Amino acid sequence: MSIFKSHISQMGAYKPPLEGRDNHQHLLLDFNERVLPVAPAVKQALIDFINDDQLQVYPAYGNITQKIADYCGVKSEQVMITNGSDQGIDLIIRSACQEGDEAIIPGPTFAMYHQCAKVENLNIIEPTYSRENGFPKQAVIDAITNKTRLIVLANPNNPCGTPVARETILEIAKAAPQAATLVDECYFEYTRQTVCDAVEEYPNLLVTRTFSKTWGLPSVRLGYVISRKENIDALLNVRGPYDVNQLAVVAIDAALSNPEYTQEYVKEVIEVSKPMLEAFLDKKAIKYWPTVANYIWVFPDNPDAMEKHIRASGILVRPKLDANGRKGLRITLGNKRQTLKLEQCLSSFEIN
Amino acid sequence: MSIFKSHISQMGAYKPPLEGRDNHQHLLLDFNERVLPVAPAVKQALIDFINDDQLQVYPAYGNITQKIADYCGVKSEQVMITNGSDQGIDLIIRSACQEGDEAIIPGPTFAMYHQCAKVENLNIIEPTYSRENGFPKQAVIDAITNKTRLIVLANPNNPCGTPVARETILEIAKAAPQAATLVDECYFEYTRQTVCDAVEEYPNLLVTRTFSKTWGLPSVRLGYVISRKENIDALLNVRGPYDVNQLAVVAIDAALSNPEYTQEYVKEVIEVSKPMLEAFLDKKAIKYWPTVANYIWVFPDNPDAMEKHIRASGILVRPKLDANGRKGLRITLGNKRQTLKLEQCLSSFEIN
Repeated sequence: MSIFKSHISQMGAYKPPLEGRDNHQHLLLDFNERVLPVAPAVKQALIDFINDDQLQVYPAYGNITQKIADYCGVKSEQVMITNGSDQGIDLIIRSACQEGDEAIIPGPTFAMYHQCAKVENLNIIEPTYSRENGFPKQAVIDAITNKTRLIVLANPNNPCGTPVARETILEIAKAAPQAATLVDECYFEYTRQTVCDAVEEYPNLLVTRTFSKTWGLPSVRLGYVISRKENIDALLNVRGPYDVNQLAVVAIDAALSNPEYTQEYVKEVIEVSKPMLEAFLDKKAIKYWPTVANYIWVFPDNPDAMEKHIRASGILVRPKLDANGRKGLRITLGNKRQTLKLEQCLSSFEIN
Repeated sequence: MSIFKSHISQMGAYKPPLEGRDNHQHLLLDFNERVLPVAPAVKQALIDFINDDQLQVYPAYGNITQKIADYCGVKSEQVMITNGSDQGIDLIIRSACQEGDEAIIPGPTFAMYHQCAKVENLNIIEPTYSRENGFPKQAVIDAITNKTRLIVLANPNNPCGTPVARETILEIAKAAPQAATLVDECYFEYTRQTVCDAVEEYPNLLVTRTFSKTWGLPSVRLGYVISRKENIDALLNVRGPYDVNQLAVVAIDAALSNPEYTQEYVKEVIEVSKPMLEAFLDKKAIKYWPTVANYIWVFPDNPDAMEKHIRASGILVRPKLDANGRKGLRITLGNKRQTLKLEQCLSSFEIN
């Protein structure tokens, strides 16, 4: 007999495929990371902190919450920093839901939503995205009941890169006032679409974001939640006082003071690499989902062979199944040089 | 109406007193930290990692779990790394307990046990430590019922520094096989007392530890849980795949390769500073709790005035109430020089 709740013992862990990622020679187009190093100023800020001999002191967050709030155009009291946006997602689900509650999580999507929902033993309803119709708005609205306590809206969704319109998000939030409406904006810098300005008007709206993607700092773990003050205060009752490490705070403080390295990267990815790869895929007649993010979900006839070919060239991409169990490859967009390398690799492969 | 569970909205956050801690001139004897910088090799490992331009990559833990297991003399499959030992404590309580379950948490003690128990809306039973009799063994055993799902045994306890005997821990674990028996050994390096070798024989035994105290790395957040494989596997279902940041892994890897800086510090604190301060307190006739850790809980007649006097000298200590509401000051032991500084400060104060 386990000392743990039976659904916890039985649910299984989320284990992302890390094989080959520790090879510094590989081009990592598999985790939607920034594929270039961060700014020298961020590195220097970390080195200065380390040399200042304060590693032996517990974290203290100073004005980082205010600085993030300023970046987002919201109030400091509407922001909570978290140990990656993973923790924000978990805290929201954990605080809002109890066993047997209904959670609407359109899929296929980022694995952590399901993982956190399973920890709370929720009843998951999963309307499906489609390449043709995008976000399943009507199915989500139809799925709302008085037992719905969570609705997850990834904007854009991963792995498909599909956006959800602002008015759709707000319509759904309004249709389920008893449910936490979690809007994951972890790719915000690529889309510039947000509902964080609407958190006062919609008291059940919670936005999660991260410094792991565009800002290039997944190693340090810093995300944040934006919601109205009452919600942030409740979430702070659950988040521990030191759940964010001090090096993350130092790094993000420096990153926010040097936004140009992120802005320039976003510009190159969205304005150069994305149309380049889309044109290449069109020419090769490889199907892919329309995307607004820094990744493209492609569906060649022979995904396994294509992945193997790409990997043999030292490039990693991420296989992801669609709702029908068909395998696609989610390819992260890097800069122009990296996109060219990918195209060169694909040029030497018989795709269809 | 809140979208969150009512007990979450109402419980209140844990807010440690951080005032003055960001003043680099203050001597921090308030958080039981290591009061000296970490080894140069730890700092250099972090700097090398930063300069290696891998900050933009998601964490991957390599062999750190094995290395920690070797340090502890257990198997790798019996260890899970966590975002500080705070996360280990939270994961255990969250995985084992549901609303209304009984939790036995002898007090006064470290605030996070209560905080995590409140998040799960547990019924907390709190037998009390006393200066004369130490750990309330019989009261804990008497409190066990068939609804007990958690027993917390801090060894040693904080703020009082009181140990719990190995045979007592194992007797309690055996008396409540349905309850997670959480043994917090976060000050292990000072006491060398552990039950981590007993986790196979006692399937409900879980040990939490940290690199935040003796190892001097609270800023990076790394703790770990030791238990039998089945328990670790269940806890890994709940812990996120990236909840520990990569800089923590780099720092702790280097720390474990350079244990002498910790060993020497422990030796000075326990063999020099502790008897020095105890002799000083005895001479001044100030009462204190017997301690096996790197802190002493002192009860002068005028704790507020004494704290004010100490703070005016640039030294921070931590006021903590006993079970009767009487205020004591918990003083962290530093090295010999720092203990002399504290004694000089106290010499100029009329204590009783």
